[in-house]
Amino acid sequence: MNTLVTDSASLDPFFHPSGVAVIGASRDSGKLSYGVLQNLLDKEHGFPGPVYPINPKADEILGCKCYPHISAAPDPVDLAVLILPAGMIAESLEDCGKRGVKAAVIISGGFREIGKEGEERERRILEIARAYHMRLMGPNGIGVIDTNTPLNTTFILGTPPRGDIAFLSQSGALCGGVIDWVIGRGIGFSRMLSIGNEADVTETDALLNLAEDPNTKVITTYLEDIKNGPGFLYALQTIAPRKPIVIIKTGRTASGQAATASHTGAMAGTHAAFRAACKQFGAIEAASVESMFNGALALSYQPLPKGKRVALLTNAGGPAAVAADAMETYGLTLAKTNPHIQSELKAFLLPDAQTAGPVDMLGGASTEEYKTALSVLLRDPDIDGVLVILVPQALNHPAEVVDALAEVMNAQNEKPVLACFMGETSVSEAFQKGHAVKLPMYRFPEAAVESFGALWRRAQWLQKQSAHLAAAESLPIAQPSAHIAEAHRSDQIALDSETSLAILQTIGVAIPASHIAHSADEAEHIAAKIGFPIAMKLMSPDVLHKSDIGAVIINIRSAEAARQAFDEIMERTRRAVPAAKITGIQAQRMIVGGIEVILGVKRDPTLGPLIMFGLGGVYAEALADVSFRLAPLTRADAEELIGEVRSAKLLNGLRGASPSDISALVNTILALGSFAAANPQISEMDINPLIVLPEGQGAIAADARILLA
Amino acid sequence: MNTLVTDSASLDPFFHPSGVAVIGASRDSGKLSYGVLQNLLDKEHGFPGPVYPINPKADEILGCKCYPHISAAPDPVDLAVLILPAGMIAESLEDCGKRGVKAAVIISGGFREIGKEGEERERRILEIARAYHMRLMGPNGIGVIDTNTPLNTTFILGTPPRGDIAFLSQSGALCGGVIDWVIGRGIGFSRMLSIGNEADVTETDALLNLAEDPNTKVITTYLEDIKNGPGFLYALQTIAPRKPIVIIKTGRTASGQAATASHTGAMAGTHAAFRAACKQFGAIEAASVESMFNGALALSYQPLPKGKRVALLTNAGGPAAVAADAMETYGLTLAKTNPHIQSELKAFLLPDAQTAGPVDMLGGASTEEYKTALSVLLRDPDIDGVLVILVPQALNHPAEVVDALAEVMNAQNEKPVLACFMGETSVSEAFQKGHAVKLPMYRFPEAAVESFGALWRRAQWLQKQSAHLAAAESLPIAQPSAHIAEAHRSDQIALDSETSLAILQTIGVAIPASHIAHSADEAEHIAAKIGFPIAMKLMSPDVLHKSDIGAVIINIRSAEAARQAFDEIMERTRRAVPAAKITGIQAQRMIVGGIEVILGVKRDPTLGPLIMFGLGGVYAEALADVSFRLAPLTRADAEELIGEVRSAKLLNGLRGASPSDISALVNTILALGSFAAANPQISEMDINPLIVLPEGQGAIAADARILLA
Repeated sequence: MNTLVTDSASLDPFFHPSGVAVIGASRDSGKLSYGVLQNLLDKEHGFPGPVYPINPKADEILGCKCYPHISAAPDPVDLAVLILPAGMIAESLEDCGKRGVKAAVIISGGFREIGKEGEERERRILEIARAYHMRLMGPNGIGVIDTNTPLNTTFILGTPPRGDIAFLSQSGALCGGVIDWVIGRGIGFSRMLSIGNEADVTETDALLNLAEDPNTKVITTYLEDIKNGPGFLYALQTIAPRKPIVIIKTGRTASGQAATASHTGAMAGTHAAFRAACKQFGAIEAASVESMFNGALALSYQPLPKGKRVALLTNAGGPAAVAADAMETYGLTLAKTNPHIQSELKAFLLPDAQTAGPVDMLGGASTEEYKTALSVLLRDPDIDGVLVILVPQALNHPAEVVDALAEVMNAQNEKPVLACFMGETSVSEAFQKGHAVKLPMYRFPEAAVESFGALWRRAQWLQKQSAHLAAAESLPIAQPSAHIAEAHRSDQIALDSETSLAILQTIGVAIPASHIAHSADEAEHIAAKIGFPIAMKLMSPDVLHKSDIGAVIINIRSAEAARQAFDEIMERTRRAVPAAKITGIQAQRMIVGGIEVILGVKRDPTLGPLIMFGLGGVYAEALADVSFRLAPLTRADAEELIGEVRSAKLLNGLRGASPSDISALVNTILALGSFAAANPQISEMDINPLIVLPEGQGAIAADARILLA
Repeated sequence: MNTLVTDSASLDPFFHPSGVAVIGASRDSGKLSYGVLQNLLDKEHGFPGPVYPINPKADEILGCKCYPHISAAPDPVDLAVLILPAGMIAESLEDCGKRGVKAAVIISGGFREIGKEGEERERRILEIARAYHMRLMGPNGIGVIDTNTPLNTTFILGTPPRGDIAFLSQSGALCGGVIDWVIGRGIGFSRMLSIGNEADVTETDALLNLAEDPNTKVITTYLEDIKNGPGFLYALQTIAPRKPIVIIKTGRTASGQAATASHTGAMAGTHAAFRAACKQFGAIEAASVESMFNGALALSYQPLPKGKRVALLTNAGGPAAVAADAMETYGLTLAKTNPHIQSELKAFLLPDAQTAGPVDMLGGASTEEYKTALSVLLRDPDIDGVLVILVPQALNHPAEVVDALAEVMNAQNEKPVLACFMGETSVSEAFQKGHAVKLPMYRFPEAAVESFGALWRRAQWLQKQSAHLAAAESLPIAQPSAHIAEAHRSDQIALDSETSLAILQTIGVAIPASHIAHSADEAEHIAAKIGFPIAMKLMSPDVLHKSDIGAVIINIRSAEAARQAFDEIMERTRRAVPAAKITGIQAQRMIVGGIEVILGVKRDPTLGPLIMFGLGGVYAEALADVSFRLAPLTRADAEELIGEVRSAKLLNGLRGASPSDISALVNTILALGSFAAANPQISEMDINPLIVLPEGQGAIAADARILLA
């Protein structure tokens, strides 16, 4: 649908139908539709309500009575799963509409993904769905799993255990691998959605539905492309304050980006807007598919840490060293055990055990030692969370250790506890047990630390959000610009520097002080007013290359010199182009000192105007040291935008230089962001350079260009 | 031992003993020594020669006859495994020596790792070992596994299957987790070594031994610290041309680095020297423990690619998109299938299958399709290797697919083939089968691509090496400097700018042209010779702050001006400090233009002199945009050193600037490297800045300092 957001309740029949019809159900166990029926009828995970296989040639399949046609299926039936050749879907969908079906999962492929003919088919089925007020999932998706209803419309072998994690995927094929993996690891899902071509239900609809699902605590998402940009941003903003959302998106390094006309355009890769959206709206972008689920596990099972100090409790020094090393990458630090807690630990651990940094109980650590040490450590005021490490030894019992840890964890839920049990065979029971008691289990220290990092990222974002909400912000009000609208109406594409600067001045961006003098007296007067040094330039529609005839004079440093310059420019112009119409002579304050930065805007086709920041000279361009946020920005966003750029340190006044006017820079960024957001005709825009003067002296746009589309 | 390298053959009894005694063997199945005996006597993986438990209180253990004392053990016995309280080790070791044992594994802890008392114990056992020409492994290590002998002196449950990968670990505890994991994954090991405290056998000895082991194709290593730096570097240089070596080292982010006096000192983290060593000498530094083994798997099982073009063969689009995305990070590219090959593929794949980029056979892909498609793809001249992706579907058989792929792989061994089979339960048989036929199997696309990246890194390093060997290089000859030796003898610590520059000039580093004038005539003459602009400065031991009295004049642009400047400086000095002894006036060519870079040296306590390179101004310091290599460097090393720095692009002549004299920069780096290597008294050194002039004009050291230790 083309609206920003659709009614989330209209998706309910996908998850809680009263009855399910499978149209195209086959008796052949080699067919996918047979697999769908198997899942719907499964003893443990099957749908508890009525299931109607629709097949005119069969009486029953898997012991379930068949109906020749959807019209013959008895009440109640509000969900249909269609697995038919693509050419037959439209007719069958129409029959569903007539029968009163409210939601249809179309598993069949052969639609938009195959080209023109398929596109037409997809358009047609959407038309039918709209006509009958039906919602469609797919086509070319494998549908829905809800482990609480329970319901499984997919043909994938096996159903994940019940859990708090929802998985939304734009790739149906990926779901098979993921489900097999989570079953093997004992990781629980609340829902899984494969939304296929998204003819009707888009990623936004699905995300907003998961936001409302009380059984979903963490949302994981595999995305290939975003169909509804504004809707997606709205969904992130709705979800992130309530639930963690972890996303992996492909196309991160896609080449073949269209050539663009501005600096910003060329520098914003296709992934920049998505990455900016995640940062601004609190989604966690995962580094890999595995780390997405690893992080989700921690977020779903454990409380958020209040700080970044992670204690290590281990029976092996090596893996603890590996874990400690990995912490820096995720902004975590190895906790230093409080001296009192150290004394408590020493009272029952071996004399050679380490208690200060990693608490290393040595190879022989017993289940009891793990248990007592964890409960002692969780009381340590200098520790924000614990990573328990275990390496299988001849004499320990990993699964027993999990039971013992669970007991301690049940007695508190203040600080997160994660576990790294190295190995495979010896620890597989421990993994299943751990996940059953909500202890996130990892095979390698690095993965465990990365997952703790996801908790900490989430905690930091929430802290920042609440600080941000508490601060009463005065942000520039976004207003459509009459100048832009007019330029757009008159089909201008590229606005020149003067026009662009003049427009930016209307939104509060400082530009160099400048006045037009019509006499030498006036020039003297203006010069005294705007301050020195000054550049003076002929204003004449008849003289294109003003420098060539000497009609530009720079570095004027006194009022008297300004008077002389006026006369000189007039004289030179009269001599070189006697017939020139002279409208005046511009006197402009020259900017001395300051640090050059580049501000840019590029409208991402999906997610809207993207603001770029970088330092001028070689930093932004040659070193690609730039950052991005979506417009409009908050003050916190603008500050982060600046802080993310490595060379922004130069603004702080390195080596005795005075610090720059960062507050003026922030205000310029905010104004630019509001402006870009309020004027959709702008496709790209650069302020290059914006000269950021020392603190208190402002930031001045020396040159700018605006491109319209 | 303190020699660079010990005789590798002296380690043979650790791997191929003729008879093994276990001293401290217990009847108690809860003791570690019982575990050792179990492993030695295991039916499948046990030692085929005689095993003698030494225990005065038992007649037999595990059906094996016991002896009361090592002296009573019959011939042959050349390896002893000692598990006794630390205080009893020395005496027992002495008995071993008397009995003619050649090698001893000391599993017991309680040595250097516990402090003073332990250190003394460790010193004592080393003395004993030396006296009897015994080699020691440990103490505080778990010893050795050799799957070919076979032999397992550890107490770890289970022995890895036979394979081509050796694992050397400075953490015994880690071995337990790793072995359990590799057994679970069906990954084979040739040897495993846990070298503990390295009282005798160090990581260098062990690495060089693995280099000689014909059953080891790939060496993996977990290191915490390097005991013998020069030995370690020698080992890398010996091994890397012959076998891949993959290393994970902790301490990457260790804080608490000692404060140092130079820029370079402050900027070279503790890990910089190790990382430089890996780059220079061809070791692959792994990002994590898991990726070390993942990479080793690919290196051990598959040939190296000739190029970076990786084809994807898949039954699912999503994981292929994830894989394609990951390639850029590792310098790989998604292969574009050759048009002829595409036609061949189209002939048997479904009409909707994709053949151009990722070859997507769609969800229903059969075993036969995988097989045929792989064999067709391997013939594609535009493809350097294939990553086969499979997601479990209702109708495919992952293990069967592995069999089919293996058939194709057996018919070629030109191009590497890796596999990503997503999931857990449904693919576990496929994993075991895959590893048995040397097809490296991964669960997630990112891990598979990372491992392909390890192959490509190795291939590139070997290509570079052979190119490098082919190029007849003229490198500066390393010579001890008489100046340095003299300064060191006279206890100078910090050499001043003038002295440092003068010393650098002796090794061919250009410094600003400069002469001493003693008369105005001479000043005029010198000025004409060295070129303009010139700075002139009083030379007088009696005037410290020369600028203050006007005895420094810069920007002199003519010979006549030089004459005047001479007179002026003389005059000012006579006026300000009438009694000053004047030794002359220095005329120095001022350097105009060029790009400032910093070259530095810091002597790493373990690995020797580390050369740093970065751009001047803010780049090196504020932006930490620097790179490192160990000295002495080859020309290729110096070029890489420069190329690794992001801001080095500025040297290429950005935005119309003329390109810099990189060849002069390289020569300066080479000279500095040789100099640092040949003069061990130098602890730190900076050339800051070195001004790199436009091409053909050289590079000039404007300031320098040398610190001695």
